Amino acid sequence: MSETTKQPLRLALAGLGTVGAGVIRLIETNAALIERRCGRPLRIVAVSARDRGKDRGVDLTPYAWEDDMTALSARDDVDVVVELVGGSDGPALTLARKAIADGKAFVTANKAMIAHHGLGLARVAESAGVPMRFEAAVAGGIPVIKGLREGAAANEIERVYGILNGTCNYILSTMEDTGRDFADVLSEAQAMGFAEADPTFDIDGIDAAHKLSILASIAFGTQLDFSSVDAVGIRRVLAADIAQAESLGYVIRLIGMARVEGSEDGKKRLFQRVHPYLVPKNHPLAHVDGATNAVVAEGNFSGRLLFQGAGAGDGPTASAVVADIIDIARHWESENEIDPAFSIPVGELDATVPAQTGDRVGKAYLRFMVADRPGVLAELAAAMRDGGVSIESLIQKGEGSDGAVMVAMVTHEGEEGCVVKALDLLAGSDSLTEPPLVMHILKQ
Amino acid sequence: MSETTKQPLRLALAGLGTVGAGVIRLIETNAALIERRCGRPLRIVAVSARDRGKDRGVDLTPYAWEDDMTALSARDDVDVVVELVGGSDGPALTLARKAIADGKAFVTANKAMIAHHGLGLARVAESAGVPMRFEAAVAGGIPVIKGLREGAAANEIERVYGILNGTCNYILSTMEDTGRDFADVLSEAQAMGFAEADPTFDIDGIDAAHKLSILASIAFGTQLDFSSVDAVGIRRVLAADIAQAESLGYVIRLIGMARVEGSEDGKKRLFQRVHPYLVPKNHPLAHVDGATNAVVAEGNFSGRLLFQGAGAGDGPTASAVVADIIDIARHWESENEIDPAFSIPVGELDATVPAQTGDRVGKAYLRFMVADRPGVLAELAAAMRDGGVSIESLIQKGEGSDGAVMVAMVTHEGEEGCVVKALDLLAGSDSLTEPPLVMHILKQ
Repeated sequence: MSETTKQPLRLALAGLGTVGAGVIRLIETNAALIERRCGRPLRIVAVSARDRGKDRGVDLTPYAWEDDMTALSARDDVDVVVELVGGSDGPALTLARKAIADGKAFVTANKAMIAHHGLGLARVAESAGVPMRFEAAVAGGIPVIKGLREGAAANEIERVYGILNGTCNYILSTMEDTGRDFADVLSEAQAMGFAEADPTFDIDGIDAAHKLSILASIAFGTQLDFSSVDAVGIRRVLAADIAQAESLGYVIRLIGMARVEGSEDGKKRLFQRVHPYLVPKNHPLAHVDGATNAVVAEGNFSGRLLFQGAGAGDGPTASAVVADIIDIARHWESENEIDPAFSIPVGELDATVPAQTGDRVGKAYLRFMVADRPGVLAELAAAMRDGGVSIESLIQKGEGSDGAVMVAMVTHEGEEGCVVKALDLLAGSDSLTEPPLVMHILKQ
Repeated sequence: MSETTKQPLRLALAGLGTVGAGVIRLIETNAALIERRCGRPLRIVAVSARDRGKDRGVDLTPYAWEDDMTALSARDDVDVVVELVGGSDGPALTLARKAIADGKAFVTANKAMIAHHGLGLARVAESAGVPMRFEAAVAGGIPVIKGLREGAAANEIERVYGILNGTCNYILSTMEDTGRDFADVLSEAQAMGFAEADPTFDIDGIDAAHKLSILASIAFGTQLDFSSVDAVGIRRVLAADIAQAESLGYVIRLIGMARVEGSEDGKKRLFQRVHPYLVPKNHPLAHVDGATNAVVAEGNFSGRLLFQGAGAGDGPTASAVVADIIDIARHWESENEIDPAFSIPVGELDATVPAQTGDRVGKAYLRFMVADRPGVLAELAAAMRDGGVSIESLIQKGEGSDGAVMVAMVTHEGEEGCVVKALDLLAGSDSLTEPPLVMHILKQ
């Protein structure tokens, strides 16, 4: 492509929702500075979406329209296909495969598709000699994939973790500020457009798990493994848990946490978990409020790096999409110049097995709702003792609306397997009015 | 250089202080992963420093030794010269010029040299077709130059600001935690190695000004202009100021702040200031403690991005130096592939004039030490009134050790010129026992 230097990089956009419209607005608004920074202009050539007539607040008349989005990648006047349709399979995946097969560079904001099919797509892109990029798939406008792939490239990354879902963080930090309960804050967030009508993917930690699996692959040079992420969402977190955590010096955040560990048999073990965690107030993530995202990477030379910003929204997401396009405009001169999508060629990424959690050592917060009658506390304490769980602090709070009593405890540092064993001992006990809630405490 | 793909990238290191030794340790420790991420190994070929015999904790015998560091760049077996000598002029600058003239890629951690000579060096590097990189010159291990140049490349940056000097942040946050005074904490920091024996560059804001001028050039696409940074350090900040700020909902941080503004005559105006600021406690920078650095960039699409991490130290600085080398290893295939050091070719950077400060609008904290006698408060209040300064809150505190009384006030939002005028009215008054201290309040 050397002959195209100084020629425009020609783009086709599939999907014209808020992000697609944002990308168009960005490229139009910042055209002059983008051209200065790229050394050549970006030019949108063609677009495609489901409904041609819909008013999106941007003028589409300068661009060719394709009813069939796969026709975008067949066009000779297109260098880069930008996929903003969403969904792990279906039209987005069809377009991705077609674009790469047609020799186009491929840029996407689609975390679900990358989590499920990213390795396969990257493998094909590498053999086709075309760039594939997905900065916007993780943490919205924050350039964290670039930060890991390039900025921290010299480091062995010990842990990568963070706040990866803006909806959950908005809900948890609003519960914290107002003392209101989950369902109430969720309804409000839905009314304000901060949460989807069907919030399952966000609330149950699946969206964060998509992003975590992508981050882990890039941070550790391991094969992406979404299926083994242990994801638990925030539905069961009560205002009372937040108040309890507060009094102990913690806030509650939904954290995606990944690390990789060696083992005796030489296989790397990949630990990936999305859970609500208790975060010590002196940790930088404790101060991340609202819909903000933040990612921490701990490198063996860099120490702790923190990347923070808006995790969603049309502007921030468009910023990340166009950053990828600018990278392509700057570097896609020859096939030699294409960095692998996951930093290392897919064939060289390490295979892993999922890590066991039982022997992990840490502190945990356990919360029980129990019947208000004599002997229940003794029953809990005995189960902890018999499981081998040592209790650092315990608080029992007066009756809830249903007559149940809340008992919250923080354990001393110990093996997670002990907590599991203690809870197994309590399973089926009619002293518990609902299943216990376990939250891990984030280590500094 | 296409024929060298998969061949090692060959390095020469000048300067073997703690950072130089850190770079060697990093390249040795992480050799395997760096090779995976680069697609080829990094190989240190030759080194140079003042004292060959000194024990640096790393084995230098595998590397050729040059007594004369400029001989490094003359070697045929060297691709990249890494300068870790320091100093804005002298041997570092001589080596930089020679390395570029000899067609070597050039990597440096030298903020003073880049602040003073970066544009000239970049211009020569661009015409020679060699890459020049200086990620480690700003904010230690944090990949913030990459973040601005590439991650946020799609955005017009409205402000770039942050905590750019770890020594000052360590001193201020220790004063905050302990209530001790500046001189006392500085001595301790010197004893612990967190501050230099001659701390002038750090304490007086010059080091932060070097970094700010580099960040501003990259963020705004403007010519680097170190000479117009208005730098005031932290020597005059008292424990009493910190306590006062605390009671008003602020912490005190040394902030480097830059923005660029248009004007009627078409010339861009560059505002660059390093001052102690009052930072609202709900701003992310208020939670940056110890020797940590943090940079905020506000993009017109990305919104607020925050990059945080260790601002100094051998490991973090080495991490940034080697990230630059990895970038070169990945991309330096042909002359077409070299991104300009300042993101935009030097000849295309905008010229600017320094911005005026008088018409800037904001809130300020003013602190006076005054004689303890009747009428002094009235004199202060009259000067404020006559300058046009409106006072939001005022606190007078009992006698200090020298019999002086402290009067601290926070103004309503107003023009900075009014504060200057009010203080001019007080100049020479024998009611003041020392010159007043003015600190601006960081806007959200």
